[in-house]
Amino acid sequence: VSPRTVRVALLGYGCVGSSVDRLLTDRADEIEETTGLRLRVVRALVRDLRKPRPFQPPPGVLTTDFGAICEDASIDVVAEVMGGLTPTEDYFRALLAAGKPVVTANKQLLARRGRELARAAELARLPVRFEAAVCGAVPVVRILCEALPPRSVRRIVGVVNGTTNYLLTRMEHGRALDDALDEARDLGYAESDARDDLNGSDAAAKMALLASTAFGTPASLDQVEFSGIADISPRDLEEARRAGRRVRLVGEAAVDDRAVVVRVAPTELDEHHELARVPAAFNEVALEGDGFGRLTLRGPGAGGPETASAVVGDLLAIAAGRATSHLARLGGAA
Amino acid sequence: VSPRTVRVALLGYGCVGSSVDRLLTDRADEIEETTGLRLRVVRALVRDLRKPRPFQPPPGVLTTDFGAICEDASIDVVAEVMGGLTPTEDYFRALLAAGKPVVTANKQLLARRGRELARAAELARLPVRFEAAVCGAVPVVRILCEALPPRSVRRIVGVVNGTTNYLLTRMEHGRALDDALDEARDLGYAESDARDDLNGSDAAAKMALLASTAFGTPASLDQVEFSGIADISPRDLEEARRAGRRVRLVGEAAVDDRAVVVRVAPTELDEHHELARVPAAFNEVALEGDGFGRLTLRGPGAGGPETASAVVGDLLAIAAGRATSHLARLGGAA
Repeated sequence: VSPRTVRVALLGYGCVGSSVDRLLTDRADEIEETTGLRLRVVRALVRDLRKPRPFQPPPGVLTTDFGAICEDASIDVVAEVMGGLTPTEDYFRALLAAGKPVVTANKQLLARRGRELARAAELARLPVRFEAAVCGAVPVVRILCEALPPRSVRRIVGVVNGTTNYLLTRMEHGRALDDALDEARDLGYAESDARDDLNGSDAAAKMALLASTAFGTPASLDQVEFSGIADISPRDLEEARRAGRRVRLVGEAAVDDRAVVVRVAPTELDEHHELARVPAAFNEVALEGDGFGRLTLRGPGAGGPETASAVVGDLLAIAAGRATSHLARLGGAA
Repeated sequence: VSPRTVRVALLGYGCVGSSVDRLLTDRADEIEETTGLRLRVVRALVRDLRKPRPFQPPPGVLTTDFGAICEDASIDVVAEVMGGLTPTEDYFRALLAAGKPVVTANKQLLARRGRELARAAELARLPVRFEAAVCGAVPVVRILCEALPPRSVRRIVGVVNGTTNYLLTRMEHGRALDDALDEARDLGYAESDARDDLNGSDAAAKMALLASTAFGTPASLDQVEFSGIADISPRDLEEARRAGRRVRLVGEAAVDDRAVVVRVAPTELDEHHELARVPAAFNEVALEGDGFGRLTLRGPGAGGPETASAVVGDLLAIAAGRATSHLARLGGAA
């Protein structure tokens, strides 16, 4: 049986986008043997065609013209890994209008406009998935949408920003924030612009998405009370550490008679607490609920290949033609 | 829109079976709102109609006649939660022959006969799922089959038997094995017959299933080198504990150029090791691989409601008509 070819386009070909292309190329045989599908990145939208790339696609793949993707009827599915709100939201809507299923890694867009985009996807009857938008390689969206009985989760608690987790771990050993941030950038644990990490809005966006997905009640970013780590002094962290305590940026979301509360704040924990022991740059999410008790997931929360792994999982589900739309969870009850 | 009713039958109505019925009943509204489906347990096979049950189904549901399930064309899907090898394997094959998709919690049957049953399911073109057979509520099978790129896992390490994890935790504080076992039974952490737990064959069966699912190369139970905890003395455990060490029953599966090695053995670990810190009666599985790095899942590994949660996740996938057959992974490459 010859495999069915699925033509994939990417919006963005940076760290995540190029890792998706590399993963689909390197593992093409295993994917074909297991699924009968051959996924090929045929087009990728970039701003600068001449920029050097770690993984160089064949000539003709990179394009600066969104229309070359949106209007190409041969493209089966699009992964949005460019980030940002503008023009990304317009692209997203144009792709749905053109009949293309979308996989996205864009937590800020979904946390702000998830409800409206869910409606657009529903009208278009297209599946949209966003595993890569929450906790990198950790498949928590899929577990919430598919593995657990609907709305059985009552509380979510986690360390969902690897950058601040790394910074706090270093600062409690005396590093200044700026020095720790330089180290984090060298190690690939922080991007050049780390504002959303430091002020807590990255963690807040993830917690809003997890809450909406789990509880069936849309929670948008402006409902989340959040604070970051910029004002914490290394001296306080060191003192806490000597007293057997750790400060971590903890997110919490809970539902009670349909009232949803979501917050993110630096939180002092006993050094033996599960969340105090999350390795630097990792994420951990605990789901608590009726029946299954407490389920904990831990893994790399960011990074090109790690995030690409989540994007590919969603692409494969959509390519196989059996994907439910996880985005529907952000639209609230029908 | 009126919901589509899906008629479910159970083989077995013990701790897990009655919890499945209870969960589908208690959460019927949430399930319907989220999926548009109404799942109803219409028939359940038992040995004794008069035995008192914690959750009593309506009259006419319980039956001692397998034919009343297998030959009833109105039954859409069957969950096998009776355990055992005989007559369970015959029932399994008869259900496939009758065109019924199956969800099973039976690790011993699949670890011994998974390859053959996978072929039968493939011939019948029916999905079979077995999340509940491995680590209770922890959705590791789904993650291996759907969330991670095919065959990207290279190594699996875990504490996959909650009973022995509880016993070791108690014995290192001086309890004799038999006393700890009585406690475990009182707490619902051990069944009356705990032989498969103590001798390691329960953990071995789970590791064989995880290895087959992850690596795409069937690993049957007789390929697993395993030993249990029956010969470990509380004195040795106490001494290890005082020296900052813990003994845990650790399972490991690794693949290298398609050679698969699976083993289960009591293993001494530093007290700070992740696997030394798995709470009593919990399971933890770490998946290591290319791209995603290391992904760790922790949750209750047994228990009626916990296992029922996994059964219901599989029932919902099949009921929605979009389920891939996870059992196909046990059949080896096509």
